[in-house]
Amino acid sequence: MSELKLVPRRKERLGDLIYGQILERILSGALKEGDKLPSESEICRSSQVSRPTVREALMRLHADGLVTTRQGSGTYVQHRPSEHLTRLAKASDIAEMLRCFEVRLGLEGQAANLAAQRRTAAQLDRIFKTLDVLRGAFAGGSVPARMDFDFHLAVAEASGNPLFGEMLETLNGTIQHIMAVALGITRAGSQERGRRVFDEHEAVAEAIRQGDAEAAALTMRYHIHRARQRLTDGQRDL
Amino acid sequence: MSELKLVPRRKERLGDLIYGQILERILSGALKEGDKLPSESEICRSSQVSRPTVREALMRLHADGLVTTRQGSGTYVQHRPSEHLTRLAKASDIAEMLRCFEVRLGLEGQAANLAAQRRTAAQLDRIFKTLDVLRGAFAGGSVPARMDFDFHLAVAEASGNPLFGEMLETLNGTIQHIMAVALGITRAGSQERGRRVFDEHEAVAEAIRQGDAEAAALTMRYHIHRARQRLTDGQRDL
Amino acid sequence: MSELKLVPRRKERLGDLIYGQILERILSGALKEGDKLPSESEICRSSQVSRPTVREALMRLHADGLVTTRQGSGTYVQHRPSEHLTRLAKASDIAEMLRCFEVRLGLEGQAANLAAQRRTAAQLDRIFKTLDVLRGAFAGGSVPARMDFDFHLAVAEASGNPLFGEMLETLNGTIQHIMAVALGITRAGSQERGRRVFDEHEAVAEAIRQGDAEAAALTMRYHIHRARQRLTDGQRDL
Amino acid sequence: MSELKLVPRRKERLGDLIYGQILERILSGALKEGDKLPSESEICRSSQVSRPTVREALMRLHADGLVTTRQGSGTYVQHRPSEHLTRLAKASDIAEMLRCFEVRLGLEGQAANLAAQRRTAAQLDRIFKTLDVLRGAFAGGSVPARMDFDFHLAVAEASGNPLFGEMLETLNGTIQHIMAVALGITRAGSQERGRRVFDEHEAVAEAIRQGDAEAAALTMRYHIHRARQRLTDGQRDL
Repeated sequence: MSELKLVPRRKERLGDLIYGQILERILSGALKEGDKLPSESEICRSSQVSRPTVREALMRLHADGLVTTRQGSGTYVQHRPSEHLTRLAKASDIAEMLRCFEVRLGLEGQAANLAAQRRTAAQLDRIFKTLDVLRGAFAGGSVPARMDFDFHLAVAEASGNPLFGEMLETLNGTIQHIMAVALGITRAGSQERGRRVFDEHEAVAEAIRQGDAEAAALTMRYHIHRARQRLTDGQRDL
Repeated sequence: MSELKLVPRRKERLGDLIYGQILERILSGALKEGDKLPSESEICRSSQVSRPTVREALMRLHADGLVTTRQGSGTYVQHRPSEHLTRLAKASDIAEMLRCFEVRLGLEGQAANLAAQRRTAAQLDRIFKTLDVLRGAFAGGSVPARMDFDFHLAVAEASGNPLFGEMLETLNGTIQHIMAVALGITRAGSQERGRRVFDEHEAVAEAIRQGDAEAAALTMRYHIHRARQRLTDGQRDL
Repeated sequence: MSELKLVPRRKERLGDLIYGQILERILSGALKEGDKLPSESEICRSSQVSRPTVREALMRLHADGLVTTRQGSGTYVQHRPSEHLTRLAKASDIAEMLRCFEVRLGLEGQAANLAAQRRTAAQLDRIFKTLDVLRGAFAGGSVPARMDFDFHLAVAEASGNPLFGEMLETLNGTIQHIMAVALGITRAGSQERGRRVFDEHEAVAEAIRQGDAEAAALTMRYHIHRARQRLTDGQRDL
Repeated sequence: MSELKLVPRRKERLGDLIYGQILERILSGALKEGDKLPSESEICRSSQVSRPTVREALMRLHADGLVTTRQGSGTYVQHRPSEHLTRLAKASDIAEMLRCFEVRLGLEGQAANLAAQRRTAAQLDRIFKTLDVLRGAFAGGSVPARMDFDFHLAVAEASGNPLFGEMLETLNGTIQHIMAVALGITRAGSQERGRRVFDEHEAVAEAIRQGDAEAAALTMRYHIHRARQRLTDGQRDL
């Protein structure tokens, strides 16, 4: 692996830069599965960036499941993200997407919990209408990102707390970008994958219908966790 | 209790109006602890608002711990919020504050969890510096809302994901309003209360220092839960 | 629906009896999907059991997803459990199984969380060995309950805390009974169902391998939640 | 620090032995706060135990908050457990107690969640009766362990699922031992500490009374987390 030369752009955080540069090498194939990364100290030296910042970048690659650490031996490339991801998004976008998932895990889990407790009949109706639209779209093989977003918005609104919807709208741009990429990956995957993605949505809707707050939060968090994995793990048909 | 006459203002949700009108009667003392609320049907009739909307408003009052339901008998006023709350905020603000807590429960719990896993030495330093400032302020008896907010922001930033801080900043106005009111209540309370509020912050910082992700999320969620209770339960010295 | 005559057996709790008698009517088809249950008061009268006990039984049927409540209208049969469940287990066993799931949700979620943080290489190996055995068995179409239990035990032991394994062994009889019934249902279901059940196990193992404590708890809880649904919802191919 | 000579007793796990021997040195003062532990490799050599087993023991000491790791530098003693703990329990008991807390975190959190959803009026009554007994005992300065256990048992039984109570009874011996030690520590601590321990119980009872399942699980888990900290952190008055 050639030196990590740091070309800082203004307003960008250094940790993001390091993260993005390693990610780009994995995406481009310069670093292949099983390849060893330079050590923390080597990256510090070559990039002139402080150790805590380098460590943070490595930790995020680890949290994303892209690299793995073998005790006393070093850090290795574990997964190469889906080729579709590589084709459809650039490294800085991917970093942004993965961060968006972390926020949604907390935010939408809580919203689903409250939705199960408070949804009115009309709000439940809307959730199931957006679910029906999704079912049709998955069956037809093409799911516009907006449709997926509409489902998540319907759940947020059923929480009875408009802040959840507003927060989602704030993330709207990134979320729809994610969904477009993710749905592209799903489309390219097996039929079973499409079915599985739909099932995850249905499980959330069902838990809200039954008024089971704990299951609603659980199924929503599981869906977001898996959606994230589908982006970063190109090998398995999740 | 006289009729709930609905004077809809534009852009406000009907559920909020019903919620606010009942809350105002509790705040003003028109409805006292132990008083029975009109039935769901009576509120629908008098306010001309649909049953699901009325039910949603009652559920939120219930979730806020302000009313309680006795099976087969009706809904009763359970707590009268702190007098300080009554003096310092109007009903629509209180509704907004309580909604803000719900979002923070999901958002800040997740941020604390990630902070325990990823904080750099510098970020940990900042958390403990804001904690020290809080310690001094509590000892001195006067805690500006900004100081409290700074602690929460330091935790959010230690998550390594800038979206958490940005989301908090979005809520900044409401959060600082909450904190000002809450800290007013704390100041008026016993010394023990001040100590307790400080302890809650310290427990979060300590869990992050130890790298215990689960404990960090738990202690942050507990703190937000209790802070909310201090607003809505004026009787007990929480 | 004829009268619920209560024939108390010693040492059994009254709530269980009421629960079991309604469940038996749903299993036998005497109460069909969409049928209305007698009201709480009617059940109290006909069974001579106190209202809180009847309410508890109805709440458990609700929590199990077997009945649903329509506001101001009453309680209706929502799902008829899988026919296989009906054939393979009697009502009192089913009640015991569903209770077992509730305990496992708390216990095994915690164990998976700790396993992700502490598993040794040897413990991880064992988890993946039991997973491989499961993969082969699912491919072959026949999965002995003991194999499924072995996977869960391997996760419990990887927590580094022997109490988790001991607790699971305490529940061993009920758990293996559940698994035998559940795996019978799975075998009778679509190939896709078999694949899905395997995927749920793999997601847990993968999260533990990556050292992601939050994901490990999440995927384990999700698996137990779905396993429970597969027992009680005979209509859908979950 | 002299060599860790391993004297294996039958049926004991090696990881427990290593854990216990290091813990004993911390308790006895042979290892003081801030002292550096031998490295993983040194412990392997001196104890003739495999690296994964030694690592597991160190991780548990870390999880217990007794040692801390400074990146690239080593492992240091962080806290010396309460002197009362040292006087009242021996190392192997302490290991058992800390493991018991881990199980209770999962088990009792789930039980409290269900109790908030299902408790009958009689079960709620019992919870508040055991709480009243605790209030009186804390005021009088002497709290028998059985009283504390009774509160936890009342919550478990209010879950409507007898397995939770049975599991607690299985742990009864260890739990009461824990409680006796913990209450001894509390008694020796400030009045404020006694008040704080009581508050934690009250918060659980209150959440169950309000039917707030999420808050019930949260407050129960917080209580168990803090109780554990009171055992292992002798420096602070938690």
